[in-house]
Parts: sequence; C-alpha cells; structure tokens
Amino acid sequence: MKDWDTVAIVGVGLIGASIGLALRRRGLAERIVGIGRNAQRLQTALDMGAVTQISTELADGVADAQLIVVCTPVGHIVSHVREAAAASPARALITDAGSTKEVICRELAEPPELVARFVGSHPMAGSEKSGAQYGRDDLFVDRVTVVTPREDSPEELVLRVEAFWQSLGSRVVRMAPDAHDAAVAAVSHTPHLVASALAAATPRQHLALAGAGWSDTTRVAAGDADLWQQILLQNRDHVLQALDHFAAILAAAREALAAQDANQLEHLLQTGKQTRDALGNRPGSHSFLAD
Amino acid sequence: MKDWDTVAIVGVGLIGASIGLALRRRGLAERIVGIGRNAQRLQTALDMGAVTQISTELADGVADAQLIVVCTPVGHIVSHVREAAAASPARALITDAGSTKEVICRELAEPPELVARFVGSHPMAGSEKSGAQYGRDDLFVDRVTVVTPREDSPEELVLRVEAFWQSLGSRVVRMAPDAHDAAVAAVSHTPHLVASALAAATPRQHLALAGAGWSDTTRVAAGDADLWQQILLQNRDHVLQALDHFAAILAAAREALAAQDANQLEHLLQTGKQTRDALGNRPGSHSFLAD
Repeated sequence: MKDWDTVAIVGVGLIGASIGLALRRRGLAERIVGIGRNAQRLQTALDMGAVTQISTELADGVADAQLIVVCTPVGHIVSHVREAAAASPARALITDAGSTKEVICRELAEPPELVARFVGSHPMAGSEKSGAQYGRDDLFVDRVTVVTPREDSPEELVLRVEAFWQSLGSRVVRMAPDAHDAAVAAVSHTPHLVASALAAATPRQHLALAGAGWSDTTRVAAGDADLWQQILLQNRDHVLQALDHFAAILAAAREALAAQDANQLEHLLQTGKQTRDALGNRPGSHSFLAD
Repeated sequence: MKDWDTVAIVGVGLIGASIGLALRRRGLAERIVGIGRNAQRLQTALDMGAVTQISTELADGVADAQLIVVCTPVGHIVSHVREAAAASPARALITDAGSTKEVICRELAEPPELVARFVGSHPMAGSEKSGAQYGRDDLFVDRVTVVTPREDSPEELVLRVEAFWQSLGSRVVRMAPDAHDAAVAAVSHTPHLVASALAAATPRQHLALAGAGWSDTTRVAAGDADLWQQILLQNRDHVLQALDHFAAILAAAREALAAQDANQLEHLLQTGKQTRDALGNRPGSHSFLAD
C-alpha cells in the first residue's frame, strides 16, 4: 500500500527530480508524472527513473494526481498552482518548493477554495547546479523543509504537507510566510547577492591567485542568474533591509581600516567570527547549497 | 646528503608546523629548530614531529641555521627578520610566509645587507584553523607560493628561495611585492572582510535556517581576528580600492533590486556567475583556505 497513487511534479529540475527519486526509492508512490515544457528535459528525468511518466501539458499531467508539487522558478509558481488546481481532482493536495513564500502564499489565498488545497513549502536543499541530472534521492535527508501555512490554512492540510516532506527524510519547521522570508533574506538571499557582487568585482587577471577562500566565498554566485533574479525580486523588501544592515557594517569596517583603527577592525572581525563559529561546520555543506 | 643542515622556523603555527613536517617527510633537513614565545605550543610542534628542537629565544634558535623561515603574524615579520639576520650566520638565507608583501619587502630593504639575504614569500595555503596541531606535511603540494623579490634582489638568492618552496611540493609564481598585494587584496583580503561583515550582519535567530550557502560564503570569517586585522592594515590601500570597487557593484545591484529592474539585476548575477565559473572547482578547496 503506497502513500500515493499518483504524484504530479510540475517542473523537473534538481528539486523536482530529487523528489521523484526519493518517492521511488522509498516506495511511496505508484505513479509519478513529470510535467514541463521541455520534452528533452522530461526525457532525462524519465530515463534516470525520477518519474514514471511525462507530460508537456500541465492540465493532462495533474488530472489523476492526489498530490501536486510545483517546483518551477518562483516567478511561475502562482500561475502553475492555479492551473494545477483547476485541472486536478478537488481533493488533490498542492504544495510548492519555492525559495520565497510571502508573495506566493498571499496571492494564492484567492480564490478561497485554494486555501483548503495549497500550503507553501521551501525545502532548504539545493545546489549551485541546476537540472534533473543532478537530482539525488537523498537530497532532503536531514535537511530542513520550511512549511508556511497561512493563518486560515486548515490544520489537517498542513499536517499532510508536513508528513509528505518528512516521508522524504526531511526535518520540517513550520513558520509564517513573512517570518520565513525575513530569515532567508538574511541567511540565503542577501549572501547570494553579496557573493555575486564579490565575484563580479574580481578582476579576471587576479584569479590565478584565487584559492579556497575566494572559491568558498563566491561559490553560490555560480547559481542560475534567472532563477535568482526572480527570488530576489519576490523577496525584495526583506533583502533590501538585510542588505542595508550588511552595508552599514561593511562601511564601519571600511572606516576602521581607512583610519588604521586596529581595535575597531579586530572587533568587527571578532563579531563575524563569533557568529560564524556559532554555526560550526554543517555536514554535507560543501556540495549542497541551500537556495 | 640533506638540502639543509639546520633550518630555523620562527613561529610554529599552522604554516610553520607544516613546513617542518614537509621538510622531515621529504628528508630535506638534518635539524629543524622551532622558535616561539609559547613553550607549550613549541612542545606540541616537537611532539608531533614538526621540529627536532625548540627554543623560546630567537637569537639562540637561529644561531646555526642556513635557512630561516619567519612564519609569525605579518605585523611582527619585519622585526623578526631583523633579529634573525643579526643573530644568524652571514650566509644564512631568510624568507617569510606573510600574506602581505609590499610593506615587509620595503622595510626590509634597510640595512642594504638584508637585500642580499632576505626575499619575501607567500605560500597560498592555510586554513581558517590556526595552530601547529592542524599542520600537514602536504599543505604546500600543488599550491601556489608567490615569491616577491625586490628589483635589487640578487637572482641567485631568489632562485634559492624558489627552490626551497618547490622542494616542499609547491608551485612557485614570481611577482613584484606591490603586484602581489593588489592581487591578494582582490581575491583574498577583500573577500575576507566582506565575509566577516556578512557573518556579523546575520541575526543569530535566523541561523537555524542557514544552509550550505551561508556556511560557504562566510567560512573564512572563522579565521583568527588578530591575524586578519594585521593583514588588512598592512594591505590597506589595495584593500580599500578593491572594497570600493565591490561596494559600487553592490550598490548598482541594490538599485536594480529597489527599482525592480529584472534585466539589470540578472545582468549583475550573470557577470558574477561568469567570473565564478571561470575559476571552476579547485581541488581541495573545501578544507584549506588561502590566506
């Protein structure tokens, strides 16, 4: 007896393919429909066993699903959830895997029926790589997935979405959409923008001396630029706030350096070290990046 | 027949201990004297086989050396090289392992005899960890060491210093001191300050959601704050210049985000991605950080 008869995955990139692989590896679904616009990418997901059938038509693909997971870029999630809701059985559960939650969960409060079917999610796993071919059946194991119900989300629905992510091995944290977005602005979106600017600011001729420090500090800048502009724009207010806080601290450090104020400079470095040391070394952090 | 009868290592932390371990592993030195102020740390280096004898008196420790490598924090290198030169045989070769070169090589042009004995070096290997206990006999293998002669450095002296680093497995790159400092300001010192400010700007309560992105981007911020304030102050002008270039690019990104200019934002992210992709994944970059 499987958890699900049919699961539909809309958008079969790294995250979507990993969900499919995890469902199959754990024997949780009878059928997994991979849905996307690009037939070749769908074929890759099928060939690697991430899905059992494929469709380029969203409405067809979700027609028999009990669970629909929308894994498309954040700028497309709202319209894909609406389309999926219209074409799937009325009792089908819908969630997503987007890196932002406030805009998505606010827009999907309309029409009211959707509140009874959709709860947002953000699995904090990923990579600077994108594409089904990088999918892994253990991508979510011991990783946090944030589930972000609205105040009016039915508790039973929220519990089912949480149970789904737990069934893939994920640890679930429940947060309000805006609290989620404020937190990821600080620990993911702003660091991404800073890393990109740092990479962009590095003259190519000096790269020959770039070692592991530069390499680690800028690693996330290798992420997909189109995906990330969507994420940053959807979380604009929180990112601007976090960015201004960062810029003020950096300006103070610049001032201390310009004034040759060794004590003040060391104080800043010490403060950064204390926060960094508070995290420690997370297992597996080297190859998989939260997005 | 060993390369060296006696090598003196002034400052037996991660770098100094790794030099000792590499010399012994490769059978390159008869005796290795570890010199430092802290008897307990010296004992650690002795116990782990990084040195064959120890001394808390610099003048005593270098008395019989043919090669002296000064591995103390950059703010102390100039005075330690002077002390070592005064107390060692006139033919003894002296180099250092400091992360900055311009100030050190300029100050050590006086007295003129020193130019015939000292050439600066910067092995681009290290870690956010410090201390002899993290030393490794392969720390320099396939890593770049920059050797920074002055215009008036005798070629024979420069070749001997280069041969020394090559004998530890390092690849040697020769650069002028100011060119070295401009390059490491861009690829190491400025990224360090940015990573520190980013860590310092992150509210502790959001760390629970920090994943590999935050972890990698801020990894170098775990480095020793006192060592790094000395490095940043010694390379102040180049770092300020690189920092202002970075800040201008970040400000443009902020502007694009605030104005919801998706094209401009994606252009910045794409520029960063192209520079990051130009580096690729350096082997071993995860555990060892250039400083």
